Amino acid sequence: MYRLAERDHRPAADRARSLKIGYVGGGSQGWAHTLINDLAQCEDLTGEVALYDVNHGLAARNAELGNQVMGREEAVGDWTFQAHREMDAALDDADFVICSTQDPPADTFVNDIDIPKEYGVYQPVADTVGPGGTMRGLRAIPQYREIAATVRERCPDAWVINYTNPMTVCTRTLYEEYPDINAIGLCHEVFQTQELFAELAETYVDAAEDVDRGDVEVTVKGINHFTAVDEAYWRGHDLFAYLDAELENRTPLPGYEPGDMEGESYWVNNFQIAFDLYDRFGVFGAAGDRHLAEFVPWYLAIDDPEEIQRWGIRLTPSSARVDDADGPDEMAQYLDGEETFEFSESGEEAVDIMRALLGEGQFVTHLNYPNEGQIAGLPTGAVVETNALLTGGGVTPLCAGELPDEFRSMVERHVTNQETLIEAGFTGDLDLAFQAFLNEPLVTLGREEARDLFADLVAAERDYLDGYDLDASVLRD
Amino acid sequence: MYRLAERDHRPAADRARSLKIGYVGGGSQGWAHTLINDLAQCEDLTGEVALYDVNHGLAARNAELGNQVMGREEAVGDWTFQAHREMDAALDDADFVICSTQDPPADTFVNDIDIPKEYGVYQPVADTVGPGGTMRGLRAIPQYREIAATVRERCPDAWVINYTNPMTVCTRTLYEEYPDINAIGLCHEVFQTQELFAELAETYVDAAEDVDRGDVEVTVKGINHFTAVDEAYWRGHDLFAYLDAELENRTPLPGYEPGDMEGESYWVNNFQIAFDLYDRFGVFGAAGDRHLAEFVPWYLAIDDPEEIQRWGIRLTPSSARVDDADGPDEMAQYLDGEETFEFSESGEEAVDIMRALLGEGQFVTHLNYPNEGQIAGLPTGAVVETNALLTGGGVTPLCAGELPDEFRSMVERHVTNQETLIEAGFTGDLDLAFQAFLNEPLVTLGREEARDLFADLVAAERDYLDGYDLDASVLRD
Amino acid sequence: MYRLAERDHRPAADRARSLKIGYVGGGSQGWAHTLINDLAQCEDLTGEVALYDVNHGLAARNAELGNQVMGREEAVGDWTFQAHREMDAALDDADFVICSTQDPPADTFVNDIDIPKEYGVYQPVADTVGPGGTMRGLRAIPQYREIAATVRERCPDAWVINYTNPMTVCTRTLYEEYPDINAIGLCHEVFQTQELFAELAETYVDAAEDVDRGDVEVTVKGINHFTAVDEAYWRGHDLFAYLDAELENRTPLPGYEPGDMEGESYWVNNFQIAFDLYDRFGVFGAAGDRHLAEFVPWYLAIDDPEEIQRWGIRLTPSSARVDDADGPDEMAQYLDGEETFEFSESGEEAVDIMRALLGEGQFVTHLNYPNEGQIAGLPTGAVVETNALLTGGGVTPLCAGELPDEFRSMVERHVTNQETLIEAGFTGDLDLAFQAFLNEPLVTLGREEARDLFADLVAAERDYLDGYDLDASVLRD
Amino acid sequence: MYRLAERDHRPAADRARSLKIGYVGGGSQGWAHTLINDLAQCEDLTGEVALYDVNHGLAARNAELGNQVMGREEAVGDWTFQAHREMDAALDDADFVICSTQDPPADTFVNDIDIPKEYGVYQPVADTVGPGGTMRGLRAIPQYREIAATVRERCPDAWVINYTNPMTVCTRTLYEEYPDINAIGLCHEVFQTQELFAELAETYVDAAEDVDRGDVEVTVKGINHFTAVDEAYWRGHDLFAYLDAELENRTPLPGYEPGDMEGESYWVNNFQIAFDLYDRFGVFGAAGDRHLAEFVPWYLAIDDPEEIQRWGIRLTPSSARVDDADGPDEMAQYLDGEETFEFSESGEEAVDIMRALLGEGQFVTHLNYPNEGQIAGLPTGAVVETNALLTGGGVTPLCAGELPDEFRSMVERHVTNQETLIEAGFTGDLDLAFQAFLNEPLVTLGREEARDLFADLVAAERDYLDGYDLDASVLRD
Repeated sequence: MYRLAERDHRPAADRARSLKIGYVGGGSQGWAHTLINDLAQCEDLTGEVALYDVNHGLAARNAELGNQVMGREEAVGDWTFQAHREMDAALDDADFVICSTQDPPADTFVNDIDIPKEYGVYQPVADTVGPGGTMRGLRAIPQYREIAATVRERCPDAWVINYTNPMTVCTRTLYEEYPDINAIGLCHEVFQTQELFAELAETYVDAAEDVDRGDVEVTVKGINHFTAVDEAYWRGHDLFAYLDAELENRTPLPGYEPGDMEGESYWVNNFQIAFDLYDRFGVFGAAGDRHLAEFVPWYLAIDDPEEIQRWGIRLTPSSARVDDADGPDEMAQYLDGEETFEFSESGEEAVDIMRALLGEGQFVTHLNYPNEGQIAGLPTGAVVETNALLTGGGVTPLCAGELPDEFRSMVERHVTNQETLIEAGFTGDLDLAFQAFLNEPLVTLGREEARDLFADLVAAERDYLDGYDLDASVLRD
Repeated sequence: MYRLAERDHRPAADRARSLKIGYVGGGSQGWAHTLINDLAQCEDLTGEVALYDVNHGLAARNAELGNQVMGREEAVGDWTFQAHREMDAALDDADFVICSTQDPPADTFVNDIDIPKEYGVYQPVADTVGPGGTMRGLRAIPQYREIAATVRERCPDAWVINYTNPMTVCTRTLYEEYPDINAIGLCHEVFQTQELFAELAETYVDAAEDVDRGDVEVTVKGINHFTAVDEAYWRGHDLFAYLDAELENRTPLPGYEPGDMEGESYWVNNFQIAFDLYDRFGVFGAAGDRHLAEFVPWYLAIDDPEEIQRWGIRLTPSSARVDDADGPDEMAQYLDGEETFEFSESGEEAVDIMRALLGEGQFVTHLNYPNEGQIAGLPTGAVVETNALLTGGGVTPLCAGELPDEFRSMVERHVTNQETLIEAGFTGDLDLAFQAFLNEPLVTLGREEARDLFADLVAAERDYLDGYDLDASVLRD
Repeated sequence: MYRLAERDHRPAADRARSLKIGYVGGGSQGWAHTLINDLAQCEDLTGEVALYDVNHGLAARNAELGNQVMGREEAVGDWTFQAHREMDAALDDADFVICSTQDPPADTFVNDIDIPKEYGVYQPVADTVGPGGTMRGLRAIPQYREIAATVRERCPDAWVINYTNPMTVCTRTLYEEYPDINAIGLCHEVFQTQELFAELAETYVDAAEDVDRGDVEVTVKGINHFTAVDEAYWRGHDLFAYLDAELENRTPLPGYEPGDMEGESYWVNNFQIAFDLYDRFGVFGAAGDRHLAEFVPWYLAIDDPEEIQRWGIRLTPSSARVDDADGPDEMAQYLDGEETFEFSESGEEAVDIMRALLGEGQFVTHLNYPNEGQIAGLPTGAVVETNALLTGGGVTPLCAGELPDEFRSMVERHVTNQETLIEAGFTGDLDLAFQAFLNEPLVTLGREEARDLFADLVAAERDYLDGYDLDASVLRD
Repeated sequence: MYRLAERDHRPAADRARSLKIGYVGGGSQGWAHTLINDLAQCEDLTGEVALYDVNHGLAARNAELGNQVMGREEAVGDWTFQAHREMDAALDDADFVICSTQDPPADTFVNDIDIPKEYGVYQPVADTVGPGGTMRGLRAIPQYREIAATVRERCPDAWVINYTNPMTVCTRTLYEEYPDINAIGLCHEVFQTQELFAELAETYVDAAEDVDRGDVEVTVKGINHFTAVDEAYWRGHDLFAYLDAELENRTPLPGYEPGDMEGESYWVNNFQIAFDLYDRFGVFGAAGDRHLAEFVPWYLAIDDPEEIQRWGIRLTPSSARVDDADGPDEMAQYLDGEETFEFSESGEEAVDIMRALLGEGQFVTHLNYPNEGQIAGLPTGAVVETNALLTGGGVTPLCAGELPDEFRSMVERHVTNQETLIEAGFTGDLDLAFQAFLNEPLVTLGREEARDLFADLVAAERDYLDGYDLDASVLRD
């Protein structure tokens, strides 16, 4: 549905002026706090952050915190924060727009996880693909259409930085609604892979010490959370040369037993699946194993949830997705002065990216962006995870060549599903969405069970599915 | 791996001369008897049939029967039959080569069916895709390389007509080994679909009576046994216009209960899956339901083999694949004169096709042939099921446009698997073959179970896997 | 600009009923008389012909003639003719629409030929490419948009048969305006090539006598008037096998002298260029030499118009393009009864094509139609000259493979120019049109001369360029 | 002919070790002196330069000069130079290979320029396209096959840096002979365009002073010497925003008169054609006008050589291509100590590029490299001029999107010609080469004159056309 446009020429602007960042979402704090942290430590950029959340109170608290932090002596940044009641106002004339949104987990995410479980479908994350990811995508598409339309109206040249999952579907929606949008999607999963390769360098390369993950060049190609890396270099040293030796060390795969992960963080990652994909397909899986597992049927073909621990990961239970109601929350403690907001090195790249896009130096990283041909063999216009060069002239994808054929086919299936979801979301057609649902690798159910699961999910989340045709034939008995 | 060549120009020949048909295989009689039947009733072509089978005795008996039948008064054809001990001799200077081969079922097909069943993987046919189809493909590739090499050597301009399954892999192997070969693959599954539409015409079109399936034009696109039809016309009447009404009549789907098919033929077909695919994906499945079911996971996600009867089909047990040892066989009875070989209208098109390729009139039908672009969205060079025009100038595919996106993706997955199998077969690489095996929709097993099943199948059939590397890493514990 | 759509399903219709043919243009009589001739001899179709021409008087006279002829005893056809003052009425509910239009030659065609001549640019025909063809295309695009829009409104399922040049641009315009239109373009140039090959068969194939051009199968690929044939068969005999011998007979090329063609018809054709293209590029030029010569620079790089006679053709002078004013015209003589309209075998295929599209049998021919992939290497959606199967289900292109690379590039240049003209015509942008003009092979002028020629042509024909921006920068001094 | 390979993984190497640069050619000194200059000023790389030239004496003199210069006090570099009599020895185990070769101009280049002139075909440079460029390409292909074969044998992982024209054909030959070669082609023509945009920045952007050309980012897309730039940024300022104003200042185009360039350098460039291409096609021509003019017919459609001066350029006469025989040459004066080799800032990037490829930092520049999809709409595998990122992991092209359609078609024609020349060069087929020759835009001759010119060129240079079939039909009378 995407048509490769010639690059347009963005109007010259004095990039040194005071900036405006519009922020959509963030009520749940995670990424908003990171932004406050990073801007407080940023010496060369200055401006305002305009916050908008469907829950205005949360946006207002973020603003209050931001201003409080910025007023502290050790904050070198010069930024003001303001909450707005309308998205239009928050985005008006913005230079950058940051998106980080989520529907209330208790009404949505919990169902995305628990209803499929009743059918024997287990999802470690449930936010990208599988039954849960599909529902999350359907809910997000109308929301991201609105954001794109607001950008077109209020700040057409702004750079939009999306952090929301499902990353591919949200970012793709932005481009489908407003093809001339300047949007990228950021995710930090690949950082883990770079860290692993940094360790490999330290282990295998003579005289390599304290290798920084940022110095490890990886060729990223795939889609968010199902990305492959087939090249990794550190200062000209080919780190793939050591991968077979490392695989040998880690054999046999899987290397854990059910129960081994009890007590571990839900986010634990042991690269078991990443290495298994390398072993069988020749490319290294470059996302956490809990994500990778959701894109093919064979890691989650389990009868009991504990079995997935054999691959060194855990299922995140739905309870962990609902805010803990006990005790004063972190935010309240900050605002009350009970806790001090500690500065840290976040490792996030948003500020570096903004700087590069303002013309202050070149920056090479991986991000989510429409395919212009950089990943040969995947459709043009599909949002892919890809290396790119960022400069004052914008984002330029770096050619990454082809994926091995069977791996490409595994990715292609999800690209097709995501494109189908976009079309279903724009037309409100749940019969079409069900085509993608049937083709989800995790949906290993019989034809009728698959239908029932889909219908159950739609029924449970129908309040969040405005604009869809709830009389679709698939929903009829 | 296939490169679209410019058409070459076949040498002019006096087509009216006596013809030679080389026949590879046929020992198991089915198709050989059909050929004898059809040639005996063919008035305008004449020549010899040179039979070759790895079991020479069977070829000799076919020759004996052929000559006996041709000597009968009511046989208008003028053909002689001779069995050869070498393929070279049988194919030397042939005008046509017919292939119809099979490994001894007791050593192979039985395992293809029964071993996966131990893992809960049920296959109604097991000859095209799924674990069984994969093994059959691996076994066939070296055999069809040899046939292609013999054609190149002995009769480079001959037309090769393949009837062997897995149809796509066998035909694709012929082209991979000898890219300039003139080869087509024939299968009669689509005839059923034409018959269904002929019935629809009789039911819904005013004054339509005794509609002949041959007068129903269907636009065929897909791969053998997983073909879609998205257009059907009879004398300018669009038969798709009646398909929704017919679907309504047949609702709900599935319409049977476990046990309903007991006592039915293993080949029973009720178009339940064909209509369900139409209902969900908008194109009509144009092969028997027992084939269609093997290409997606959701019809065979069953715990008990009887459940598949809900879709109006049965599983063919492996016992039905081994020759019945009781009593004198049909062939013996014919040769002894106890039974008379009765002429029938076979419905097969081979003789019509030969006639057209000899320059005697144009003929439009569906067949299996490399994709030159006739099915947009599938890879060039992949063997697809497609309409084509046959004339004295050869085979010309008819453009069929694109498949709906999700259906295309379902087909693409198998095309990728088949291309991977070809590469595995040509290099002897079973690790590569296992990539395709993992991506088979019917392999809904866990990662290790999938490996075990593959290893078990290879172990059971290793005598038929000469030329493969049996030390592949996937086969090691 | 064209998007490959899935085939739609035309509504079933009782094709045996009385038909309506809408006829746009035809005032200049040529093709209208052929239609009257063919319908008068057509036993199995019946109905009315609704005539519309911008010059209503001419349409009325055609109607009068049609009815007069149909009333004659020897006319077996049963058709009535009526002239309409509005295109809407003529096309309302039509089953077929025939287009055959031309602007008044004295105001347009004459300039197309004579103004370039002043710049040393000679065009034998000037109706397809070159400066003249470019202008003709610019004039035609708005007219064919109107026809397409009327079809969409009045007879959306009708089959539109276009005879007007520039064939590619007119047919392409129909699809650009109304992508779901059912339109084909017919041209008889390739018939000559079939006749040549019929003669080759008679000469070189044993026992071949009275070979009918219709029995010669040629693989047509290219664009109208610049089509290549790379295969020709007659009853299975490969006629390309004799082409080198025939080339040898005709060597050296060119084989004529200036002056040799004096007194010959302007339409004389000696296959000199067709064979020269075969000699140098390996494919046979399948249009009259006077057309082929206009698509590359090297046959018309002449200082004196007589030089082109060396290739066995003549330039048609502009005077031959204006109606002869002397004496009563043919039409008047028919209507007055002074002359009798004699029936002939026209050789045109329109009636056969209508019959096939009504479901009465299959018909294979060559025509102009959007590329769905049948000509690999040319852009999808471009209108190409191609073989096709016509049945009650519609038009299905036959795959023709690739052109040799340098020949393909020569065609590609014109395809690009034609697509550019379409865009220029739809936006009214003459600066864009000038890009195509500069890239016309016959425009071998300096940069400023090229501009002057374009400006002169636009100035001379501005009355026929409504809807174009005459303030384009290229038109300013 | 090129097949997009998956990237291979180069063996890790200790990049800090002493390097070996193999140098092929350089006898004519220009680029060899630049290399000596640049290495003498390079502090961080060290090693040896192994020189090979078909004229060993010239290589030996370069070695002598190199060692002499490196011995001077102000030379901070640490390199030794040695001349070899065999290419094998010079390239054995090299880390980098630099190619800069030329046939003796008096026997070749002089004919390339002067023989076409006799036919009225004027070429300002004659080294890339046109009749002269075609001949140069035909001569170079066997030579670059030999280089590629030697690299494959002696230093398969080396990076090959080509400076020789025709750049595209030479670099493409390297990849055709040895598809896994690591090769790039460097040309400094685009630097001029960056300088022009640097001046635009200084003129139009507030507070921009002393803008460095290296800080101007341009999106380069096309083929060497016919490259377009459609984006230019300086520190986030879009410089294309000022291009229309600058065009207005420079109007009318052309702005010179015949004779205006007398006395100017042959290399004078006034961006007249670069701006005219921008004016008409919307993209800026990014090579010197003398090169750009050779790729389309309309700037050189002149009757008198002086006319080209209207576009602010001169034709380089063949006499300027032959070494001046008068007086002692520069080299002799250096070696004799009569002249001192002065260090300068060369502006060349080879040393920066080597450094980046050794893993010392990232470097973004433009170079000539196979198309992996970075320029959408041009064929995969064709050597294109493209932006790329250079790191220790190799060369990664940067996506540049599509060219405007008519410009793309102009480029495509040359890409096709270059691919045809490669095929002709590898098969020795001059009939095939003549297909490309006929399609050269500067060959605006009649069909027979074109043949005669081609035959004359081949006859004059036959001593340099070993390996071609001189009995090609095009060469017969």
